[in-house]
Amino acid sequence: MGTGENLEWEQRRRVEVETPPAKPFYEVVKSTVKETLFPDDPFRRLKRQPLRRKLVMGLQYFVPILEWAPRYSLRSFRSDFVAGITIASLAVPQGISYAGLANLPPVIGLYSSFVPPLVYAVLGSSRDMAIGTVAVPSLLLAAMLGKEVNPKLNPNLYLHLVLTATFFAGLFQASLGIFRLGMIVDYLSHATILGFMGGAATVVCLQQLKGILGLVHFTHATDFFSVLRSILTQFHQWRWESGVLGCCFLFFLLLTKYFSKKKAAFFWINAMAPLTSVILGSVLVYFTHAEKHGVQVIGELKKGINPASASELAFGSPYIGTAIKAGVITGVIALAEGIAVGRSFAMFKNYHIDGNKEMIAFGIMNIAGSCTSCYLTTAPFSRTAVNFNAGCKTAVSNIVMAVTVMMTLLFLTPLFYYTPLVVLSSIIISAMLGVIDYQAAIHLWKLDKFDFLVCISAYIGVVFGSIEIGLVVAVALSMLRVLLFVARPKTMILGNVLNSGTYRSVDQYPKAATVPGILIIHIGAPIYFANAGYLRERIFRWIDEEEEKIDNMSGTELQYVVLDLSAVGNVDTSGISMLDEVKKELDLRNLKLVLANPGGEMMKKLEKSMLMESIGKEWIYLTVAEAVNTCNYILHTCKPPKAAATVATTTTATTEIAAAAYDNV
Amino acid sequence: MGTGENLEWEQRRRVEVETPPAKPFYEVVKSTVKETLFPDDPFRRLKRQPLRRKLVMGLQYFVPILEWAPRYSLRSFRSDFVAGITIASLAVPQGISYAGLANLPPVIGLYSSFVPPLVYAVLGSSRDMAIGTVAVPSLLLAAMLGKEVNPKLNPNLYLHLVLTATFFAGLFQASLGIFRLGMIVDYLSHATILGFMGGAATVVCLQQLKGILGLVHFTHATDFFSVLRSILTQFHQWRWESGVLGCCFLFFLLLTKYFSKKKAAFFWINAMAPLTSVILGSVLVYFTHAEKHGVQVIGELKKGINPASASELAFGSPYIGTAIKAGVITGVIALAEGIAVGRSFAMFKNYHIDGNKEMIAFGIMNIAGSCTSCYLTTAPFSRTAVNFNAGCKTAVSNIVMAVTVMMTLLFLTPLFYYTPLVVLSSIIISAMLGVIDYQAAIHLWKLDKFDFLVCISAYIGVVFGSIEIGLVVAVALSMLRVLLFVARPKTMILGNVLNSGTYRSVDQYPKAATVPGILIIHIGAPIYFANAGYLRERIFRWIDEEEEKIDNMSGTELQYVVLDLSAVGNVDTSGISMLDEVKKELDLRNLKLVLANPGGEMMKKLEKSMLMESIGKEWIYLTVAEAVNTCNYILHTCKPPKAAATVATTTTATTEIAAAAYDNV
Repeated sequence: MGTGENLEWEQRRRVEVETPPAKPFYEVVKSTVKETLFPDDPFRRLKRQPLRRKLVMGLQYFVPILEWAPRYSLRSFRSDFVAGITIASLAVPQGISYAGLANLPPVIGLYSSFVPPLVYAVLGSSRDMAIGTVAVPSLLLAAMLGKEVNPKLNPNLYLHLVLTATFFAGLFQASLGIFRLGMIVDYLSHATILGFMGGAATVVCLQQLKGILGLVHFTHATDFFSVLRSILTQFHQWRWESGVLGCCFLFFLLLTKYFSKKKAAFFWINAMAPLTSVILGSVLVYFTHAEKHGVQVIGELKKGINPASASELAFGSPYIGTAIKAGVITGVIALAEGIAVGRSFAMFKNYHIDGNKEMIAFGIMNIAGSCTSCYLTTAPFSRTAVNFNAGCKTAVSNIVMAVTVMMTLLFLTPLFYYTPLVVLSSIIISAMLGVIDYQAAIHLWKLDKFDFLVCISAYIGVVFGSIEIGLVVAVALSMLRVLLFVARPKTMILGNVLNSGTYRSVDQYPKAATVPGILIIHIGAPIYFANAGYLRERIFRWIDEEEEKIDNMSGTELQYVVLDLSAVGNVDTSGISMLDEVKKELDLRNLKLVLANPGGEMMKKLEKSMLMESIGKEWIYLTVAEAVNTCNYILHTCKPPKAAATVATTTTATTEIAAAAYDNV
Repeated sequence: MGTGENLEWEQRRRVEVETPPAKPFYEVVKSTVKETLFPDDPFRRLKRQPLRRKLVMGLQYFVPILEWAPRYSLRSFRSDFVAGITIASLAVPQGISYAGLANLPPVIGLYSSFVPPLVYAVLGSSRDMAIGTVAVPSLLLAAMLGKEVNPKLNPNLYLHLVLTATFFAGLFQASLGIFRLGMIVDYLSHATILGFMGGAATVVCLQQLKGILGLVHFTHATDFFSVLRSILTQFHQWRWESGVLGCCFLFFLLLTKYFSKKKAAFFWINAMAPLTSVILGSVLVYFTHAEKHGVQVIGELKKGINPASASELAFGSPYIGTAIKAGVITGVIALAEGIAVGRSFAMFKNYHIDGNKEMIAFGIMNIAGSCTSCYLTTAPFSRTAVNFNAGCKTAVSNIVMAVTVMMTLLFLTPLFYYTPLVVLSSIIISAMLGVIDYQAAIHLWKLDKFDFLVCISAYIGVVFGSIEIGLVVAVALSMLRVLLFVARPKTMILGNVLNSGTYRSVDQYPKAATVPGILIIHIGAPIYFANAGYLRERIFRWIDEEEEKIDNMSGTELQYVVLDLSAVGNVDTSGISMLDEVKKELDLRNLKLVLANPGGEMMKKLEKSMLMESIGKEWIYLTVAEAVNTCNYILHTCKPPKAAATVATTTTATTEIAAAAYDNV
C-alpha cells in the first residue's frame, strides 16, 4: 500500500476477507426474482402509505390519465391542440400510405389513427408519443401474411388475418408487460435495430418505385434483386407522367426537410409538407384529369368511423399459425421502436417511462384496435418528433389528433378521391430516407466493430434476403456475442503501477512492473460452466508462458500464482470444480495458489465446497497488494520452498511460513 | 491508501488512467479469433522449430500413436495387457446388453467393441479411455429412430438408420473438432449432464424391468408412467423364474460393487463380476433348460468379424432427417461424456487432453464404425474407470480389448447361446444405479441452488417426459442462466474497509463505512446492450435510495456518484450510450459523475465516443480510493457546489476545483 517495504509492513493492518451473512433461502429467491423482474421497483412510492392512498396511487399507476387529468390546465390544452392538429395533418397522409404498404384499403390506415391514440392517451405514461401506424411492421405484415393469402384475390380474408395478427401482437405485448419480461426487448440491441430499420427502409423505398413509375403489376418479394428485376423487365410499362409528378413531390418534401434542419423556424413547413403535397397533388389531378393519363388515384373512400371487427378475428382460420407468428414478430418490433422512442423523448424532458407498463398500454391499445378495424400501431419516431417539436404537453395531443381524424373520416373522405398514389409513395420515401442512418453506422464502426458487424449483417440480410432473414441474423449475432462473451472472458496479467500498491493490467499500463516469482492473473468475468474449461486452459497457458520467459531469461523461479477475483461476481459448481482442479495441478507443479479479493458469492461457495480449507484461509487476501506483499516477504526471507522434497511437505511448509509471516508482522 | 488524511495527500502520487496503445484492426481480429477458437494454442510447441521437425511434430499432433509408440516398452505392455483383458471381460456382456437397449442384434454390440477402439488407439491422446458403447445414447437412438421405423417389423431398415445416425454423429463430432467449436460441449454444464444422465439411467433401469420380469411385449415410450402402466397391466405375464434369477444376479453384482468400494483389493472381483454372471447364468440355463420355462436367452449369434456396411448407409432414405437429428444429438451427448471422462482421468495422471483434437478422434472413430457395422461409441465412465484401476499405461489396452473381442467374435459366439437376457438386464441395472448420483445432486443443492434446479429439471424432464424433453429443458435453463446473468449483473454499494483505503461491498463487509456525500457503486459485469437498460434503472435506484436515506437522517447531501468499473471488462455502443445518459441525468440532478478504474476497452471507447470529454479526464481515477479522496477534499475545503445557480456553471466550477485540487496536492 505505501511505498517502501518497511512502511508497508508497518501500515499493514490486514482485514480478513469476509463471507457475507447467510440469508434464508426464501429471501434469496425473493430478492433474485425482484431484481430480475422488478429492477425498477415500480411500487416503491406506495410503501408507507395508508391503504386508501395506496389504492388511489395503484390505480393511477395503471391508468396514468387519472394522475395528470385533474391537474390539466387550459394553457397546456392550447399547446396540445396545436400539436394535435399538426400530427393529424401528418397522420392522414401517412395512414393512407402505410395502409397501402400493408396491402390494406386506405381507410384502414385512417381508422388506425383514431381508436389506438385514444386508448393510449388513457393508459400511456409518455407525454410526447404520437400513436400511429409504421412502415416497417406494415411491410412485414404484408410480407408474412401475403405468402398465405393473396390480398388482391381474397381481400376480406387477408384483412381478417391482419386484424387477427394485430390482436395477437397486442396480446403478446401486454403479456410481456404483465409478466415483466420487458428485458426481451433489451435483447434487440441498438445496432440490431439500426441495421434492421435501415434495411427495411431501403426495401420500403424500393417498393415505392412501383408507385413512382406507375406500375400495376409488381413482385411480392421484398429483396433487392426481385424488385430490380420487376422494375427492369417492365421498362415499357413505365409512366413518365407518374414519374415526373413523383420526383417533383419527392424533391419538394426533401427540400422542406432540409430547410427545417437548417433553421428551427422552418419546422412547421416540414410538418405540414405531407398534407400540402396531398392537397396540391389532388388539386392538380382534379384539374388536369391526370387519372386518365396513367396517374393512379386513391378513388372512393368509405365514409364513417371504424366499424366493429371483433367478430371478424379469424381464430378458426387454417392460417392462424401464420397470423400468430406475424403478430408476435411485428409486435416485438413495434414495441422496440415505441419503447426506444418513448425513452428518448422522456429523457429530454427528464421524466421516467416504465417499459413494462408501456408494453401493457401498447398491448391493450392494439387489442382494442383489432376489435375496431385498426391494424398494428405504435409510436413512430417521425410523428413523435413532430409532436414534441410542435410543443405538446401531454397525451391530450393524441386525443386532438384522434378527433381530427374522426372528423376527416366523417366528413372529408370524398376529398381524397383524386389524391394520386404517387404522392403517397413520395411521402413514404421521404420519411424512409430519414430512417437510413448511415452516420450512426459509421459511428458504430468507429466505436465497436462487432456492433457494426451486427448492424451491417441485419441490413444486408433484410435488403438481399428477406426481412425475416435479416432479423434472425441480427438477433443470432447479438446472442452469439453474449454467449461468446460469457464463454471467453478476459484474463489479464497484472503489474505494480509505479510502486503505488495498485496492481493493473500490464497491457493497459505498459509501465506496470510484474513481480518476480509471482504471477498475478486477473479474471474478468464470473466463472460459469460455459467458461470454466476455457479459464483453466488460459490460466495454465499464462503460467506456461511465464515459466518459459523465466527459463529464457534465467530470472527468479515462478512460485506464486495470485488470482485476482475482483471481477468474479459469481461462480457456479463448474467454476468451483475448475478452481479445485487448478489448485490440484498447481500443487503438482509445486506452485502456490493465492486468491485476492473474492466476492461474497465466491466466499460462500468456497466455504461450502471445502475448497477454502484446501487452499487455506491464510492464502486468501483482501487486496492483490496484500497477497503480493506476503508472497514477497516469504520469497525474500525464506529459502525457495521448491528445494523441499515432496509436494505435500512443501505445501505445509509454505503455509506455515505464511501463517508465521502473518502473525509476526 | 494511508490512514490519516494528511498522510494520504502526502503519499498521493496519482497515476493517470491510461488507454492501451491502439492496435491495427487485423491484429485485433486475429487475436480475437485465436482466443475464441484456439484458447489452448495447440501449435505452441511447433514454434521456433526447423521445418522438418515441424512436419514430424505436426503429424504426431494429429496421430498421437506416432509420438508414443516408438517409446513403448515391454513393461508398459504387461500392464496394458492385463487392463485390456479386464475391460474385454466387461466389454462383451456390456456390448451385448447395450445393443439390446438400442433394439439392435446383440452381435452389433460386439462389433462396436472391435473397430472403434482400434481407431481410437491410433488417433486418441488419452491414455486411460476405454472405448465402447454406452447406455444413454443407445436408448436415445432407439427412442428417436424407433418412432419412425419399428425395429421388430423392419429390422434391416432400422439397422441401416442406426448406422446412418452413427455416421452423422461422427461427422458432426469431427466437424466440431475441426472448426474448433469444442465450446459447444462446454455449454452442457455439469449440472445438466448430471440430471440428464441420472434421469436417463432411471429410465434405462425401468426399461430393464421388462427383462427381469420376462415380459415379451413392452411399451416403446420411455417415460415413467408409460413403463409403469405397461408393467402393471401385464401382471399376469410376469415370470417368477426370470424375476428370481434377475434379483439374484443383481444382488451379486451390487454386492461385488459394494465390496470393491470398501476395499481397493476387491477391485478385481467387481471388474470380473459381469463376465462371471454371464458364465454362471449361461451354465445354469444350459443345465436346467430354463429357456423352456420362461427365461429368455440370447440365442444364436453370428460368427465372424464385422461385415463392411458403408454401402448400407441410408443417405437416400426418407427418414434421413430423423437420422441426422438423432446422430447430432446422440453425438453431442456421447462427446460430452467422453471428453469429461477423458479430462478427469488425464488430471489424475497429470497430462493434458486437447478437447478439439479428441473430438476429431471420436468423429473419425464413429465414421469408421458406421462403415463396419458398429453403432455409436464413446468412452464410458465405468469402463474407463476399470481400465484405469487395472493399471493401463497407454491406449494399447484398447487394442488388447479389441483383439480379445475379435477372438470372441471368431470363436466364442456359440457360447453365448444360453446366456439369459435377465442377466444382461441385471448388468445394465447394476451399471446404471451407479450413474444416478444423488449425492452429487445434494452437493449441488448445498452449493448452488440454480444448478440444482437445472439438474432436477433435467431429471424430471427425462423421467416423466422424454429424453429429448429433459435435454431441451436442461439446456434451455442453462442458457437462460447465462442470458440472465448478462441481463442482470450485480451492482454493489462500496464502503471503506477499516480506513484502509480499500473499498469493498457493504453487504460482504458489514463494517465497511460508506462515505457521506459520496455514493460508490460497483458494476459487476461488462456493459452490453442486454444489460444497459437494467443498469441505468439500477444505478438511479441506488441514487434514489441513498437520497431518501439522507433525507430521513438529514446527513450530508449526496454530491458525487463514483462508478467503480473494475469489473467492467468491455462495453459496447449501447453501454456507452447508457453511460452518456447517466452522465446527462446526473448533471440535471446536480450530481457529479466520477469513474474509477476503467479498463482498456472502456478507456478506448470513452475516448472515441467523446464521452471522455463530457465527463472530464480529471474525473477518471485509477482507484476508488483516489476518486473518493479527491471528492472528499473538495467537499471539505469548498462550499457545496449545489448552491450555484445553473447546472452548466456548477459543472464547470467543480471541474475547475477538481483540477485545482489535483494540481495543488
